[in-house]
Amino acid sequence: MITIYKPTKEEWIGLIKRPIITTESLNESISTVLKQVKDKGDVAVENYTSLFDGVQLKNFRVSKQEIEEATTSVSQEIKEAIKIAASNIKKFHQSQIIQEEKVETTEGVNCWRKSVGIEKVGLYIPGGTAPLFSTLLMLTIPAQLAGCKELILCTPCNKQGKVNEVVLYAAQYLGIDTIFKIGGAQAIAAMAYGTETVPQVYKIFGPGNQYVTKAKELVQAEGVAIDMPAGPSEVLVIADEVADADYIAADLLSQAEHGTDSQVVLVTTTRQKISEVTEALEKQLEELPRKDLAIQTLKNSLMIELSTIEECIAFSNAYAPEHLILNIENAEKYIDLVINAGSVFLGAYSCESAGDYASGTNHTLPTNGYAKSYSGVSVDSFVKKITFQKLTKQGLKNIGKTIEVMAEAEELIAHKNAVSIRLKKLSNE
Amino acid sequence: MITIYKPTKEEWIGLIKRPIITTESLNESISTVLKQVKDKGDVAVENYTSLFDGVQLKNFRVSKQEIEEATTSVSQEIKEAIKIAASNIKKFHQSQIIQEEKVETTEGVNCWRKSVGIEKVGLYIPGGTAPLFSTLLMLTIPAQLAGCKELILCTPCNKQGKVNEVVLYAAQYLGIDTIFKIGGAQAIAAMAYGTETVPQVYKIFGPGNQYVTKAKELVQAEGVAIDMPAGPSEVLVIADEVADADYIAADLLSQAEHGTDSQVVLVTTTRQKISEVTEALEKQLEELPRKDLAIQTLKNSLMIELSTIEECIAFSNAYAPEHLILNIENAEKYIDLVINAGSVFLGAYSCESAGDYASGTNHTLPTNGYAKSYSGVSVDSFVKKITFQKLTKQGLKNIGKTIEVMAEAEELIAHKNAVSIRLKKLSNE
Repeated sequence: MITIYKPTKEEWIGLIKRPIITTESLNESISTVLKQVKDKGDVAVENYTSLFDGVQLKNFRVSKQEIEEATTSVSQEIKEAIKIAASNIKKFHQSQIIQEEKVETTEGVNCWRKSVGIEKVGLYIPGGTAPLFSTLLMLTIPAQLAGCKELILCTPCNKQGKVNEVVLYAAQYLGIDTIFKIGGAQAIAAMAYGTETVPQVYKIFGPGNQYVTKAKELVQAEGVAIDMPAGPSEVLVIADEVADADYIAADLLSQAEHGTDSQVVLVTTTRQKISEVTEALEKQLEELPRKDLAIQTLKNSLMIELSTIEECIAFSNAYAPEHLILNIENAEKYIDLVINAGSVFLGAYSCESAGDYASGTNHTLPTNGYAKSYSGVSVDSFVKKITFQKLTKQGLKNIGKTIEVMAEAEELIAHKNAVSIRLKKLSNE
Repeated sequence: MITIYKPTKEEWIGLIKRPIITTESLNESISTVLKQVKDKGDVAVENYTSLFDGVQLKNFRVSKQEIEEATTSVSQEIKEAIKIAASNIKKFHQSQIIQEEKVETTEGVNCWRKSVGIEKVGLYIPGGTAPLFSTLLMLTIPAQLAGCKELILCTPCNKQGKVNEVVLYAAQYLGIDTIFKIGGAQAIAAMAYGTETVPQVYKIFGPGNQYVTKAKELVQAEGVAIDMPAGPSEVLVIADEVADADYIAADLLSQAEHGTDSQVVLVTTTRQKISEVTEALEKQLEELPRKDLAIQTLKNSLMIELSTIEECIAFSNAYAPEHLILNIENAEKYIDLVINAGSVFLGAYSCESAGDYASGTNHTLPTNGYAKSYSGVSVDSFVKKITFQKLTKQGLKNIGKTIEVMAEAEELIAHKNAVSIRLKKLSNE
C-alpha cells in the first residue's frame, strides 16, 4: 500500500481521486445493443446471449422446475442464513416507511405527500464468479415494502444455461417468479424497452460490469430511472491507537478481494498503526483464495497518517467513501462530523461485512465519491412521493391574491385567470 | 383540441405518447461547450456568453449594488406575495423532515439513517420572457431546510448585462448572495466543474431550454447529480358532469400558455362537458396575451370521453401527468387509485396555479411520463440519507454465523474472515 505521512490539504486533492475509468469507447457498441433489442426484441436478446455469453437459449425465462430444483439443492445452512438476513433487512427497511401528516399551510389549504410504489421495477444480478444473492435481498425487500407491483429479475446463466442456484433459491424465498436468464447490456435493454418475453419496467436496479453500467447510463438518458451511477467498491477505515490491527487488516482485505479496481484506504492518527496493519495484512493475505486479486488492489491503496480524528474525518468527507469504518473509541461522538459517506460502521465490532449481509442496512451504496450527492438504496428508491392538495373556497380566497400577483409578475396571465375566474364566481355567490 | 370518444385500451397507447423530442444532434455541440468550460474556466464562460447571449461581461458575479437596486425597485405588492408564498412553501417542506428511529434488528445490532444536506448545490433559473422567480423559491427553501451549506445561483442576464430584478429580489429575500449572471450550457458546465469564479457543486437543479437540459444530461452521465430529467410541462384534468367548464378551461389554458410543446388533456365522463369546455376555451382565449401560443398548444391537445371516473384515473395513470386535477365530486374518495402523477389537485378550488405559486407544494415535478418513477423536488432531493450501524460484541456474536455462511456462499472469504477473526478473539476473552 502507498503510505503518506501527514499530507497537506493540497495533497489531499490528489489522494481523494479515484482511478479514472473511461467508458466513452463503449458508447457506440452499447448503443447498438440497445437499438437492436428495442427493434427486434427477443431475437436480438437471444443473439447477444449467444454471442457474448456463449449460450443458445430456446426459452430464457427460468422455469418453475428450475426454481424447484434450486430449492432442493441449496443447503439448510444457507437457507437459514438467508432467512435471518432477510428478517433483519426487512426490520430496518420497514422503519423507513413513515406516514407524513397533512399540513394546513394557510387556513383552507391542505397539502400532503403520499408514497406510492413504482409499479414496474427490474432487478439485475450479475453472474460470474461470485453469485451475489445478497444483492437480491437488498433490492427485493425494499421494493416489496414499497409496494412495487411488478418485480422482475434478470441474471445471466452459465454456458450450460443454468442460473446460480442460491440466486434462484433466494428469488423463490422472496417470492419473485419472473426471472430471465439473461445478462449484460441486452438484459438492461430488454427491461428498459420490453420484449415479447420481458416486460418493460420503469426503474432498473443492480450492479454489473462496464457493459451493464454503460447500458444503464444510456437508458437513463432516455428517461428510464436507475438506482445510481456505478463505480468500484471502496472502504475507508479510520483507526486510533487502540484499534486492533488484525480487525483493520481484515476489513481492508474484505474490500480488496472485490476486484483490482476496488479501493481501500486506512487513515489513522498513529504511525505505529500503519506498520502493525501492514504486518497483519501480510499474514492474512496468505490464507485468502483471492490473494492475487487482493494484492493487486492493495498496490493502489492508501495508508495515511493525520494528526487528529477530526482531521481523519475531514479527509473522509473529502473522499466520500462508500463504506466508512470508524474503528475508534467513542465512535458515536463523531457522527455529526460525518458529511459524505454511504454507510458508516461504528466501533471495533461493526465490520463492513455485517452491513454487506445481515445487519439490516442496505449494501447498495454510492461509490466513486457519489456519496457527496447520492444516498444508498432504501425504500425511498422504490417509491414516488406524490403531492396532494385540497383548497376549500376559503382557502383559495386566502391565497388567491398572492397567486395572482406572482403569476402576473411572471407574465403568466392564464395562470392568474385560473384563480381570478374562481374568485369572481365566489364573490357572486 | 383533438376529441376522442370512448377510446379502446389499445388506442390509449397512442394517446399517452408525448411528442418525441430528439436532442441527439445536440450531443456534440454541448459536449464541446462542456469541455471548453472544463479546460478554460471563466474565459470559456465569457466567450460563450458573448456568443450565445450577445453580452460581454467583465465580471459575471452579481454585485451587492445590483442586488440592492433590485430590492428597491420591486413593488411592495410582489414583496408581500413572495413573503406569503415562501412561508407556505416553508411550512409544507418542513413537514418532510422526519427524524427516523434507531432500529435494533437483532439484539446488539443497531441501525439507523441520518439525513445530511448535500454540501454544495447549484440552482439554475432561466431568463427569457418569463422570469421564474417562483422556481427560485421552490428550490431554495427545501435546500435551506435540508441544510445545504453552499447554495449558488446561475441565471442569464439580458443584453444590457442585467438580471431580472424580481429574481434578484427573491434571491436576496431568501439569503442567496452567490449569483452569477450566466445561462445556457456554459452555466451548467461552470457549476459541474467549477471555474475560477464559479464554485463546483455536487448537484444541479432547475429548468431550462434544450441546451440546458442536454448539458444537465451529459454532466449527469459524468456523475454530477441532477434534479430529474426534463420535458415539457403538462396538465391532465379529470372532470365529472358537475365540474364548472370555465374552471376547466382556465386550468387547461394556464398550462397551454407555457409553450407550444406543453400538453393539456381533459378526460371526462360526460360528452356534454367537452362541448362546454370548448366554448369556454374560445371565450377565455380572446383575453390572453399569449393567445397565439395557447392556440398552438391546444391544437395538439386532447379531450377524451371515458365511461367512469375509475377509467379516467386509469387513463391518467397510464399517461402519468405532471399535474393531475381531479375536478370531481368527492375527489378525496379516489386518492388511492392515483398511482402515477407528479402533483394532484383535488376538487373545484384546487387549481394548478395554487401549487405553482403559493399553496406550499413544490412545482418542480416530473414531466413526460417520468411520474411513473420520479418524485417532484422536495427536501429529500437535497439530502443524502447516510446509514449508520453499531454492533456490540454480543451483536456480532448473534449475526456472525449468518454473515460467515453467506460470505462463503458468495465465495468472498475475506468478507467472512472479517467476522471470523473477531469471533475468534472474542471467544478467547
